[in-house]
Amino acid sequence: MKTLHLQTRAEEMADITAQVQAAVDESGVAEGLCCVYCPHTTAALTINENADPDVARDILYALGQSFPPHAAFRHFEGNSAAHVKASVLGAAVTVPVQAGRLGLGRWQGIFFCEFDGPRTRQYTVTVLGTAQNAQPAP
Amino acid sequence: MKTLHLQTRAEEMADITAQVQAAVDESGVAEGLCCVYCPHTTAALTINENADPDVARDILYALGQSFPPHAAFRHFEGNSAAHVKASVLGAAVTVPVQAGRLGLGRWQGIFFCEFDGPRTRQYTVTVLGTAQNAQPAP
Amino acid sequence: MKTLHLQTRAEEMADITAQVQAAVDESGVAEGLCCVYCPHTTAALTINENADPDVARDILYALGQSFPPHAAFRHFEGNSAAHVKASVLGAAVTVPVQAGRLGLGRWQGIFFCEFDGPRTRQYTVTVLGTAQNAQPAP
Repeated sequence: MKTLHLQTRAEEMADITAQVQAAVDESGVAEGLCCVYCPHTTAALTINENADPDVARDILYALGQSFPPHAAFRHFEGNSAAHVKASVLGAAVTVPVQAGRLGLGRWQGIFFCEFDGPRTRQYTVTVLGTAQNAQPAP
Repeated sequence: MKTLHLQTRAEEMADITAQVQAAVDESGVAEGLCCVYCPHTTAALTINENADPDVARDILYALGQSFPPHAAFRHFEGNSAAHVKASVLGAAVTVPVQAGRLGLGRWQGIFFCEFDGPRTRQYTVTVLGTAQNAQPAP
Repeated sequence: MKTLHLQTRAEEMADITAQVQAAVDESGVAEGLCCVYCPHTTAALTINENADPDVARDILYALGQSFPPHAAFRHFEGNSAAHVKASVLGAAVTVPVQAGRLGLGRWQGIFFCEFDGPRTRQYTVTVLGTAQNAQPAP
């Protein structure tokens, strides 16, 4: 398990694909599963398009519209909407690993989603599976 | 890892339970975890009731109501609502495998959710765990 | 795979963290992944804050507001909103295991979410990875 850190803005979807692939490289696993995990309760992980940055921007906008603050919220910190979004997107993403590469689709990236920043955050990468076969002897 | 294909309609939840179980059978894994993964950014995977088809129909209806198109969306392709639904349901489902069978509940099925079809789509099935024990010698 | 049971109220988020950690202990796995799975279609699992109980209360409130019953729902059992919430939160949570402990954040707990109770429910805990190394001989 590898722990990585990032500094977030107030609200954002930070593309962490390259960092996760580097952790997969380090693990030496060729075939298996990679689990990226967010140990925070007002942030989350998701997989979506990382080609047009307007996609992430629209997702954050839509989540703000669909999960607004409510006058009836009681949590004393006043960030309940961020907790709701964290549960809706989820604390973990799992991606297959094949030939040592994340099995992401052509337009997919892995995003760390901040709903209550700015903060110093972390996430972990765990890779399970079988190691790269040694090259067959000539 | 096994890759499977399907042809989707404009919007639908396609029951892929049998195809996923067949991939588990092929893997030879008896005890472990099965991860089904969707490499697209306007489609997703979910687990829900596959007995009454009205459940899937109601889920799609509710997602359409809760995550509508917004005039403020900027993504040039105009399918941001589909990207939002993809992140809300998620790109992967993980199901335990026991005695070679998916550990689904009695009413559960695995669905490929199309939010921006019709398209030719794919998904992958990765199974990790321990193989069926050989019969002990007599 | 270990199966655990609980009796739920009409709607609630029941903290099952201690039970899941006990199942991890029993598994003997030191480094790997723990998958908690809900085999029901109107309940789900999530990870969020378990320090202030108002967080769970606010999440249930917000889900009720964001995914209300609709007159257009057709499922004959009348609990479609519960099915929608089950798919939005998801049937499984995956958490890394390190040194035999769930890799949860300081404020995180694992919750069984009931959206259509009271009922007798169950969930399973599957742990994959490598066992605790024996102490090296002196």
